[in-house]
Amino acid sequence: MKKLAMGIDIGGTNTAFGLVDEDGTIFCESAISTERYKKFDDYQDYVDALCEAMHALIGSVSFDFELIGIGIGAPNANYHTGMIETPANLWKFRDDEPNPDESRRMFHFVDDIKKSFPGVSVAITNDANAAAIGEGVFGSAKGMKDYVVITLGTGLGSGIVSNGEMIYGHDGFAGEYGHIAVDSRTHGRDCGCGRKGCLEAYASATGIKRTAFELMAKMSCDSELRDIPYSKFEAVMLSTAAKKGDAIAKEAFRFTGEVLGKALADLMATTSPEAIILFGGLAKAGELIFEPTKWYMEENMLATFKNKVKLLPSGIEGKNAAILGASALIWQRNI
Amino acid sequence: MKKLAMGIDIGGTNTAFGLVDEDGTIFCESAISTERYKKFDDYQDYVDALCEAMHALIGSVSFDFELIGIGIGAPNANYHTGMIETPANLWKFRDDEPNPDESRRMFHFVDDIKKSFPGVSVAITNDANAAAIGEGVFGSAKGMKDYVVITLGTGLGSGIVSNGEMIYGHDGFAGEYGHIAVDSRTHGRDCGCGRKGCLEAYASATGIKRTAFELMAKMSCDSELRDIPYSKFEAVMLSTAAKKGDAIAKEAFRFTGEVLGKALADLMATTSPEAIILFGGLAKAGELIFEPTKWYMEENMLATFKNKVKLLPSGIEGKNAAILGASALIWQRNI
Repeated sequence: MKKLAMGIDIGGTNTAFGLVDEDGTIFCESAISTERYKKFDDYQDYVDALCEAMHALIGSVSFDFELIGIGIGAPNANYHTGMIETPANLWKFRDDEPNPDESRRMFHFVDDIKKSFPGVSVAITNDANAAAIGEGVFGSAKGMKDYVVITLGTGLGSGIVSNGEMIYGHDGFAGEYGHIAVDSRTHGRDCGCGRKGCLEAYASATGIKRTAFELMAKMSCDSELRDIPYSKFEAVMLSTAAKKGDAIAKEAFRFTGEVLGKALADLMATTSPEAIILFGGLAKAGELIFEPTKWYMEENMLATFKNKVKLLPSGIEGKNAAILGASALIWQRNI
Repeated sequence: MKKLAMGIDIGGTNTAFGLVDEDGTIFCESAISTERYKKFDDYQDYVDALCEAMHALIGSVSFDFELIGIGIGAPNANYHTGMIETPANLWKFRDDEPNPDESRRMFHFVDDIKKSFPGVSVAITNDANAAAIGEGVFGSAKGMKDYVVITLGTGLGSGIVSNGEMIYGHDGFAGEYGHIAVDSRTHGRDCGCGRKGCLEAYASATGIKRTAFELMAKMSCDSELRDIPYSKFEAVMLSTAAKKGDAIAKEAFRFTGEVLGKALADLMATTSPEAIILFGGLAKAGELIFEPTKWYMEENMLATFKNKVKLLPSGIEGKNAAILGASALIWQRNI
């Protein structure tokens, strides 16, 4: 009988899910709103709505198949405990909550899904780890035992695989490479984590936008970018401008590549992967970001590691990459 | 029959080796000079002398035992290939070498030892990795699956264990955490690797000595340390002075702890170990180095990781730690 795994991607706006076979083909997919259930008290309703929608999707498949498991990619997910722990944008207390105790925001997500799918294996990890497993099972890291996936979206996430296994760390939260210091912890850019100077405040879609605004202040050249206010500015505008030769946009990519390349040189010294895969919105800028990143990475690398690592684009990127990655959590155990 | 593993520690001056049982008891040990064989052409003589001395040590044991393997800790050793690759201080070309081609300085050490011990399993790794495996098998990391050992000697070495396995990386050289950037690559301190700003130029026995000399220039307080020239200065003098209340020595430990603690906070974000073990000469300063390192590590940690990791002293430290660590390379496969 055909075997399929369910992959679920929990985003801040929507939760997408789909049934995936061992070749990475998505047979069918669907989504529910996450946003509609974003308050603490909505959690159980969210789980019920998601399970109902998954059962409906399963019922819609016209052939017999075996559901071999459900893999979930979610922010602040802990692989070891199966929980989503104090997520920044999900199931938050209402502003008028009388006792906003963060320690109550520990959601037994895997257990709660299992109640609706008895006997089915369920696993969860964070989005960047899911992307990394997806690259290993279906994408650019197929067959590799030591590789790293860096997701360059709103923030910078990372999934580190060594000896053929995801590094979850003792507490389940390893791979927060976006939060290493690349600038002063007292004078660097504010980071969403409450500190300053973190890598993701520089190397991410948000980071390059911030760099562009610094450069508008620093450089005096003409630029169409000067007509766009910060609140309307999107990182993709920098790709378009850079391709037209805009000096600010080009310098923003160079600087971002410098910061990211230096950080990746240090990561080489730590786990020495065979490949580093850049994934996510900013990575889609292609050579604009790959070329300076690779140059600064090699330039700043310990001699032992020079010219060894491959800097690769994602092999699964597309609108369904997150579903593929989540399903790969199940497939990695079954292939 | 009793089982014993041979542990070999190849240092720049001497090569020490001993027979170790599964509890970490060293039954007998011996050493030969490494220094005497330091030129390129001396390599085969060195291997012959070492094998002869090992056979003599084995012959000296008064009871029957099975030699289950030979584990080796050596600089620039590659676990994957069994080679010692272009070591900085071993088997170097003579100054008048007509064709000093570094690519010829690749020594098939494991294979060469096997010739003299047919049928015996032989494994090699670098000194810091051997120390890390030693802590896992016999020392402070017993029973842990995710931990890091930082060796604070002349340089800074690291051995990173995740999911119960040493991270060797794709090329066999992972764990060079002493060479991440903690200061400017253009203005930081010179590092032995030829670059500037590496962690080990600050956090190591040599690094704290350099810091003390910077502080003598910067601070105007009296200090007995001002009577000692750089060439005669040893890091251990700073422990003695700090215990007597010397302001320069105390500040040197605080600053070293700051640099090391911040670097360890970033390492937590990368592999999130259960424990970080400080090993080697500088770690013997005890609270003088542990206290500021722990404080700055926690202070600079992403909230997720705060108050989770144990900062521990070595559990095998002593004159035989390196032999124990090397033998653990064999015992980890046999316990």
